[in-house]
Amino acid sequence: MSMTRRNFLMRVGQAGGYSATFATMQALGIMPMKAQVVKPIEAQAGVGKGVSVVVAGGGVAGLVTAYELRKLGYKVTLLEARSRPGGRNWSARNGTTVEFIDGTKQQCTWEPGHYQNLGPGRLPSVHTTILGYCRELNVPLEVEINTSRSSLLQNDAVYGGKPVVQRKALNDARGHVSELLAKSIKGGALDTDLTKEDKDRMLSFLRTYGPLGFDGKYHGSDRAGIKQYPGAGSQTMQIEEPLDMHSLLDANFWSGILYEEAWDWQATMMQPVGGMDRIPYAFARELDKTKTIIYNAPVTSFKRTGANKGVEVTYMQNGKEQVIKADYMVNAMPLPIIKKMKNDLSAPYKAAIDGATYANSYKLAWESNRFWEKEYNIYGGLTFRAPGPTTVIWYPSANLMADKGILCTGYEDELNWGWEKLTLEEKFATAKKQLEKVHPGHSQELTKPIICMWRHIPYNEGSWIRSYGGGDAGYNTLIQPDGPIFFAGDHTTHVVGWQEGASQSGRRAAEMVSERVKSARMAGHYAPVEA
Amino acid sequence: MSMTRRNFLMRVGQAGGYSATFATMQALGIMPMKAQVVKPIEAQAGVGKGVSVVVAGGGVAGLVTAYELRKLGYKVTLLEARSRPGGRNWSARNGTTVEFIDGTKQQCTWEPGHYQNLGPGRLPSVHTTILGYCRELNVPLEVEINTSRSSLLQNDAVYGGKPVVQRKALNDARGHVSELLAKSIKGGALDTDLTKEDKDRMLSFLRTYGPLGFDGKYHGSDRAGIKQYPGAGSQTMQIEEPLDMHSLLDANFWSGILYEEAWDWQATMMQPVGGMDRIPYAFARELDKTKTIIYNAPVTSFKRTGANKGVEVTYMQNGKEQVIKADYMVNAMPLPIIKKMKNDLSAPYKAAIDGATYANSYKLAWESNRFWEKEYNIYGGLTFRAPGPTTVIWYPSANLMADKGILCTGYEDELNWGWEKLTLEEKFATAKKQLEKVHPGHSQELTKPIICMWRHIPYNEGSWIRSYGGGDAGYNTLIQPDGPIFFAGDHTTHVVGWQEGASQSGRRAAEMVSERVKSARMAGHYAPVEA
Repeated sequence: MSMTRRNFLMRVGQAGGYSATFATMQALGIMPMKAQVVKPIEAQAGVGKGVSVVVAGGGVAGLVTAYELRKLGYKVTLLEARSRPGGRNWSARNGTTVEFIDGTKQQCTWEPGHYQNLGPGRLPSVHTTILGYCRELNVPLEVEINTSRSSLLQNDAVYGGKPVVQRKALNDARGHVSELLAKSIKGGALDTDLTKEDKDRMLSFLRTYGPLGFDGKYHGSDRAGIKQYPGAGSQTMQIEEPLDMHSLLDANFWSGILYEEAWDWQATMMQPVGGMDRIPYAFARELDKTKTIIYNAPVTSFKRTGANKGVEVTYMQNGKEQVIKADYMVNAMPLPIIKKMKNDLSAPYKAAIDGATYANSYKLAWESNRFWEKEYNIYGGLTFRAPGPTTVIWYPSANLMADKGILCTGYEDELNWGWEKLTLEEKFATAKKQLEKVHPGHSQELTKPIICMWRHIPYNEGSWIRSYGGGDAGYNTLIQPDGPIFFAGDHTTHVVGWQEGASQSGRRAAEMVSERVKSARMAGHYAPVEA
Repeated sequence: MSMTRRNFLMRVGQAGGYSATFATMQALGIMPMKAQVVKPIEAQAGVGKGVSVVVAGGGVAGLVTAYELRKLGYKVTLLEARSRPGGRNWSARNGTTVEFIDGTKQQCTWEPGHYQNLGPGRLPSVHTTILGYCRELNVPLEVEINTSRSSLLQNDAVYGGKPVVQRKALNDARGHVSELLAKSIKGGALDTDLTKEDKDRMLSFLRTYGPLGFDGKYHGSDRAGIKQYPGAGSQTMQIEEPLDMHSLLDANFWSGILYEEAWDWQATMMQPVGGMDRIPYAFARELDKTKTIIYNAPVTSFKRTGANKGVEVTYMQNGKEQVIKADYMVNAMPLPIIKKMKNDLSAPYKAAIDGATYANSYKLAWESNRFWEKEYNIYGGLTFRAPGPTTVIWYPSANLMADKGILCTGYEDELNWGWEKLTLEEKFATAKKQLEKVHPGHSQELTKPIICMWRHIPYNEGSWIRSYGGGDAGYNTLIQPDGPIFFAGDHTTHVVGWQEGASQSGRRAAEMVSERVKSARMAGHYAPVEA
């Protein structure tokens, strides 16, 4: 998706001053990104006085929108279909009911303190907006272990299906690459590309990077695997032999070893202590102080009552249809839900929404003894296996060394690998069978499965957006308001599927509403802001 | 240091049974290492009944020795020179006094909850012995963040002294290596080494590993750095240009980027919640139930009273010399301390001890605002800089996002870089000046420095062993008993400077004492064990 830049930075630059310069310097990569303290959004203090906004949808985007609009003095009503805030930011724990559209219900009976984040599960340290809100709202964070060198890779087609420890795959690959490059350089293959000095520098680097022996070859290293740990007395370290390069380079195999360097999967990552839903509950606590949120209030229709100002939103409450009027609406509901709703959106908006497709991610989690810690030294991190279904085993980062914990043994799209054709019981049996390939003998310890398939969850009907009706044009439509109706949600950002996107979209919506209000005031459509 | 193997595994094998087979399979790398549950040591239950042992030194080695001997029924007295257990496992916090041999005193007045581990600060997940004790003694653990892609590298001689984010150095290096290898392969340089299929596999791997563009070149990637984060609306991601290879390969620069793959520095690493000294205090709590530890009891001399059995140990208590007699002694004091003590060790032992040299590591820590989190997105991990002094900045893993924390800005040998020639005030000023190169403007936030230089700490006089009198022969001497006197400590292992070594040495000492007792009983030197 390529788009011209909205140029937030230029707008900041026009405002001038220190923060502008600072932002520019950041953009040039000269200074590190500022983190973790949410800056006031770009709008005049008190701009919202006397202006009303309905926010539809209490996921992270809607919560941030409402929270920021409240700060600016707007009269805000947030309509949330469910009895809880957070949308996809949902943590299953004792007492949670996961109910599908077809009425299938799962009741979570895990031990108190155990939870599984059914939606987002990670906060990268580079996601400074959502982290900033965690700081502002005092949400305690702990490390989410995204990388563990002890976690595994398993592919039915390679190494006879035997799992390989990630430290081995990753460091043996590096060793083989280093050996081959050193050999090429010594053989003169890069003489026209590199100066004598750079060849020497690179060879010296590769000796440590590989690491390579004095003979220029890779013979394994402690990084990749130790068959006898060093110990007391005469117990010396004994290094494992490297994996053979041919199998290691099987494309079926290595894809799993490269995930950890993606910018939003790099260490350090975090999670709220006690479950990801601590974030929406922290927003809700603030908003409840002003009774901003109406729960159990699914929106049924919305329409404009003026060209640039004025909306009428209907919603259900206690079995009765209610109507609320406001100056503006911020539509922070998922597109599959908006699509089914009576509305008077303009044609390009309807096209973008009606033609949108969504991913259908699911998560499957169990309560289990922590065999992965006791038997495998695995503390957090992810094991990757193939072929699917159930290509991921995600080990918990919380409560290390407790007796039991929650293990996620499936996280992918339900339309892959024929997963959607299986009954729930077949899914659970399949997941256990696949786990046996990685952790033989341990599937019997998996108990009390909970599966959340977002395609089947009311008020979501999908996990995250995959494409827009009309493609890029559809996206460019949705990021602009349709008269008095603005859009928010990770689907209005380039950070799809992350709370960072949702929260940035909420801030942007609050800014855009405020720009509109400012313009309208300048055009005389509003009474002046009270002193 | 190359030594023949004491062959612990073979001994296990002789005992036979499941555990033996399992251990052998582990040694062959077939099964993952068992973790985290300390197995009973190899000795008969109750073997110690009626046998007395004095353990000298209440560091981790001495604590484990005493703890395991107690389990086996021995009558154990642990003599500890200080008023606290743990030896080098020492955490400074409010109320701690760091006193040097010359009488210099530093009083720690940090806020409650703040601490700095002055000795060991990390528990690798592969250190299964010490982790096993944490589990057994219910020491709560949390993640110690050893790797953060947002931490920095800084070298006065490279890039004009400007710090570089580790994600950039690491991933740009990988990109350059991949590009050069891909070019070599395409140019035919490895045609005699690789089959056509393996060349294709490697090229395909390098495209993702680099990652490389369609042109086979490395153009930077999100892994290495983003100059504009993706955001809401039209804010797309913009990738930074790669660092030039010539500077990146400056040997002064890259050494810091490779630390994280060392087997005992790999993720996941852990730390006790509240400070590393929670471990020795947990052992002490158990041992205090049987009043095993005598604190404030520095040993002043020891001697044998029989060839294979019988020791007499003198120590000070309340200003008076006390004598204790026992069947055996386990000497778990640092060698520089044993060296100064009157003793009747045999000549080879004296030579090994008297000729031993120790490293002189220090740690320097401050209480500070958490500017590294707020301004740099750095949550834990280490920054490396050069040249020294103060080549390491170690960011805290505990209490992420709190306002203040403890920052370690120096951890290296005090005899490097002329550090030992500086007064304390000069050391603090130098550390601040060096920090300015990495975090300009922030040295003023560093307050209340505490420095622990182990060479100057009574009852230690060094940080960890560097060499033995007589070299390997000296080591081989010390790992065997001198008549009734056995040795424990990380200096009797191949895991020097780690609690894993200390705890393995304690287990081994308990095993060796028990083997001796068993032999003596078989030779009729003991009454039979009571039923």
